[in-house]
Amino acid sequence: MFFPPDTETLQLMPAIDLAAAVAGSIGGALYAVRKKFVITGVLLIAIPASLGGGILRDILLGQLPPVALTQAGFYLPAAILPALLVFFLESVIKRLERLLFLVDALSLGLFACVGAQKALAFHLNWTAALMIGTLNAVGGGILRDILGGETPDVARPGALNSAAVIIGCAFYVALIELVEVNKYIICSLAVFLIFLLRVLSVRYD
Amino acid sequence: MFFPPDTETLQLMPAIDLAAAVAGSIGGALYAVRKKFVITGVLLIAIPASLGGGILRDILLGQLPPVALTQAGFYLPAAILPALLVFFLESVIKRLERLLFLVDALSLGLFACVGAQKALAFHLNWTAALMIGTLNAVGGGILRDILGGETPDVARPGALNSAAVIIGCAFYVALIELVEVNKYIICSLAVFLIFLLRVLSVRYD
Amino acid sequence: MFFPPDTETLQLMPAIDLAAAVAGSIGGALYAVRKKFVITGVLLIAIPASLGGGILRDILLGQLPPVALTQAGFYLPAAILPALLVFFLESVIKRLERLLFLVDALSLGLFACVGAQKALAFHLNWTAALMIGTLNAVGGGILRDILGGETPDVARPGALNSAAVIIGCAFYVALIELVEVNKYIICSLAVFLIFLLRVLSVRYD
Repeated sequence: MFFPPDTETLQLMPAIDLAAAVAGSIGGALYAVRKKFVITGVLLIAIPASLGGGILRDILLGQLPPVALTQAGFYLPAAILPALLVFFLESVIKRLERLLFLVDALSLGLFACVGAQKALAFHLNWTAALMIGTLNAVGGGILRDILGGETPDVARPGALNSAAVIIGCAFYVALIELVEVNKYIICSLAVFLIFLLRVLSVRYD
Repeated sequence: MFFPPDTETLQLMPAIDLAAAVAGSIGGALYAVRKKFVITGVLLIAIPASLGGGILRDILLGQLPPVALTQAGFYLPAAILPALLVFFLESVIKRLERLLFLVDALSLGLFACVGAQKALAFHLNWTAALMIGTLNAVGGGILRDILGGETPDVARPGALNSAAVIIGCAFYVALIELVEVNKYIICSLAVFLIFLLRVLSVRYD
Repeated sequence: MFFPPDTETLQLMPAIDLAAAVAGSIGGALYAVRKKFVITGVLLIAIPASLGGGILRDILLGQLPPVALTQAGFYLPAAILPALLVFFLESVIKRLERLLFLVDALSLGLFACVGAQKALAFHLNWTAALMIGTLNAVGGGILRDILGGETPDVARPGALNSAAVIIGCAFYVALIELVEVNKYIICSLAVFLIFLLRVLSVRYD
């Protein structure tokens, strides 16, 4: 019943996974800085926000220890350095709030694609890939909100962010499964779709 | 130190596990609908409420990916369709609130038995089976409450629901370990006991 | 890529791990008693507070089922009996509040060392050991706070407890990796350092 994961499918992922981790770290640190956390508190929020979704994904896929730990030399700097940058450049960053919302929306799409793709590489079916992709995308933000003592944003009444992730993730999985197109292109399209849905949902909420 | 799980003991479980998942989905969706969540929010509450306890159980037993993912073709519909039904039939369901409390009490018992039984099938001892059974039963509800931004109901001061689960679970494990009776009968008795304790605890709280 | 864990390094741990579990159970039970929980609520808070950090550690290391379950005959009494003692001796314990803070500070150090050491025994590098040690130390308290419906203490703005854990954990990992000294001595020093930082951080907060 167990097949080794499809390594070719896995090749695209490390770069995207790390890019998403950087975006998650920035989002988590900004959240913590706004709440007036001290530097260790900022790190304790930013690291789960950055690596939490991927760790949950790897736990469910049974790839333990998770890549964030076996490759900690890459993942920990990706989770810590952007958070420190946000902490020390707080006054500058605040003016960039709009940019940060965009980075956040981008990270949702990147995480969703990485998660869905990894689940497919582990030979799970498309419904499972959809669940893993969504969890990978929203997991970090949920951990960030729980640690910060707030109702998780993704499940807030009226919010459409979760809709964006689920729709974009389904779009990605459907194209990967049904169409013979290069997966980099499909991934870019899905990330763009989730990004667009997020931006529109905020504008017309 | 590792023995393959006892497959005969596992045979009863899928049907009970799916029945509990359906009950958990209904409970989660009703909770989300009351809080005026939009449809994606309802799904993001109902799916963890439905599958969360079983996924936590499978993580602790090291059966990864969890059955909810390897058998996603069965478990995802069991988690999604009842939630959609609740969402679209909201006005009808509200009148059925009493029935839903009963369904919820039933699901606690089903999840507790499935969890305890699976732990025993994995050759854990009775204390561990008690922990897994309890976690399986209360896990989905705890996730639902956290995602909904409330203090987890199971740990609320004065509440006796957790007592019902622990007592019923201990009853189940004790009978399974000590008595030579068909396990379907024991399971039915334990589910009935937990159900009864829950109903009584609400009446006399 | 997978090596069996270094069993010699693991030998120190069970005693320390159990001692930390006892301290975690006392801390969790006191927290629940203060919030007027009934006895089952106290157990449902104390058990995760006691075993939660170690279970999260074992999940991330892929040692499943976690030792808290495979050795449930030791770990469950360590999690339950101190909690029952706190519950029944409530009036006496209250006068011992100062002692309990010290026990709590001690448990942070014990958990951090056990976690870091176990990660190194699983051949993870020092950054990963730092993450596992910190998670092991703060995990139980985070679960306790979430189940009790509060903002996790470890991430509260201004608090220096997390700083103590991270610094002490880094101190432990650095000495273990760099110095040829008996690891019992290093462990004692690190536990003492974390203990001292905690006490000072409360005094000068």
